Amino acid sequence: MKLYDFDISGNCYKVRLLLNLLGTDYERVPVDLFGGEHKTEAYLAINPKGQVPALADGDIVVSDSQAILVYLAKKLGADQFWPDDGLTQAQITYWLCTAANDVVQGPGAARLAKKFNFDIDYEAAQARAHALFAVIEAHLQNRQFLVGAEPTLADIAMFPYIGLCGEGELSLADYPNIQAWLSRIKALPNFIAMPGID
Amino acid sequence: MKLYDFDISGNCYKVRLLLNLLGTDYERVPVDLFGGEHKTEAYLAINPKGQVPALADGDIVVSDSQAILVYLAKKLGADQFWPDDGLTQAQITYWLCTAANDVVQGPGAARLAKKFNFDIDYEAAQARAHALFAVIEAHLQNRQFLVGAEPTLADIAMFPYIGLCGEGELSLADYPNIQAWLSRIKALPNFIAMPGID
Repeated sequence: MKLYDFDISGNCYKVRLLLNLLGTDYERVPVDLFGGEHKTEAYLAINPKGQVPALADGDIVVSDSQAILVYLAKKLGADQFWPDDGLTQAQITYWLCTAANDVVQGPGAARLAKKFNFDIDYEAAQARAHALFAVIEAHLQNRQFLVGAEPTLADIAMFPYIGLCGEGELSLADYPNIQAWLSRIKALPNFIAMPGID
Repeated sequence: MKLYDFDISGNCYKVRLLLNLLGTDYERVPVDLFGGEHKTEAYLAINPKGQVPALADGDIVVSDSQAILVYLAKKLGADQFWPDDGLTQAQITYWLCTAANDVVQGPGAARLAKKFNFDIDYEAAQARAHALFAVIEAHLQNRQFLVGAEPTLADIAMFPYIGLCGEGELSLADYPNIQAWLSRIKALPNFIAMPGID
């Protein structure tokens, strides 16, 4: 399998993280986002949205980081991360869509503003981030992971941009449950780091 | 089952649409968003994000419209809408997350700006909407539905805010494949309308 990848993208990292937790070999194909490679005709043929990551598995190409997580969990038989039970899949989908929306517009946008100088409304991103953190903090009361007692795709999808929130100058000081959850993920066997996450 | 509902919400409508396509009875519980009912303590106990829809099925509560679609498809055995195959689930997840992100920030935001006078950057929403429409238009070339030959949760999740895009003063004139796809969904047995969608 080939992963079209960018090392400082949290969305790419979440795929690398799952692949490593599952002990799966793959080839990294770096895409030069700063050089605009993701908007070239060659890359748009792989992912028409012009985003990383994308995963090529033979003739199959899957893009969108959350969709790739689902593909990998099913392909590799990682039932713990994506159980067949309907309620559990729905609960995980809740967090996959939270990662695609609230996280992008909250901690993701704050990081783009502060670390990469994007022209983004930082105050709005900061407010959305803290509203999200409050929801997660309450949810993690008496829970080890976001869905059930073991890590699932929900944790993998939500972890990167919350783990990177310091780069968006967002503090987790008021969220001890989130801090403990981040530590629990970092303690998983075969956990890997990325720039900005130890 | 009880659906916490708001009639002009496209996210609520997508759940009502699936329930109707599957011929399932349910109880609608209107939530007065204009009156702020979604931010009351009583409603936040149902959905801590303070959003509609939410679905209560006995003691089980599921929120996030995409997550509810997954829950219902599994509970009601609607395998066509959410097949067990990993690649298909990944492809549907791609569109569920597109509905949660690109659609919200594109046609969804444009509608909030134009129909409900929200303080939103309309030009940015318009640009995002047309970038998304271009991707969908190309994707629908030689396809009847977004994933495979039959409608799936991908179509249900993507349909409402694209069907409502006229309320955001966005034209589909340049996107004949999208227009044909909207018509195909409206022709499904047991299709229901909502305000703004005939």
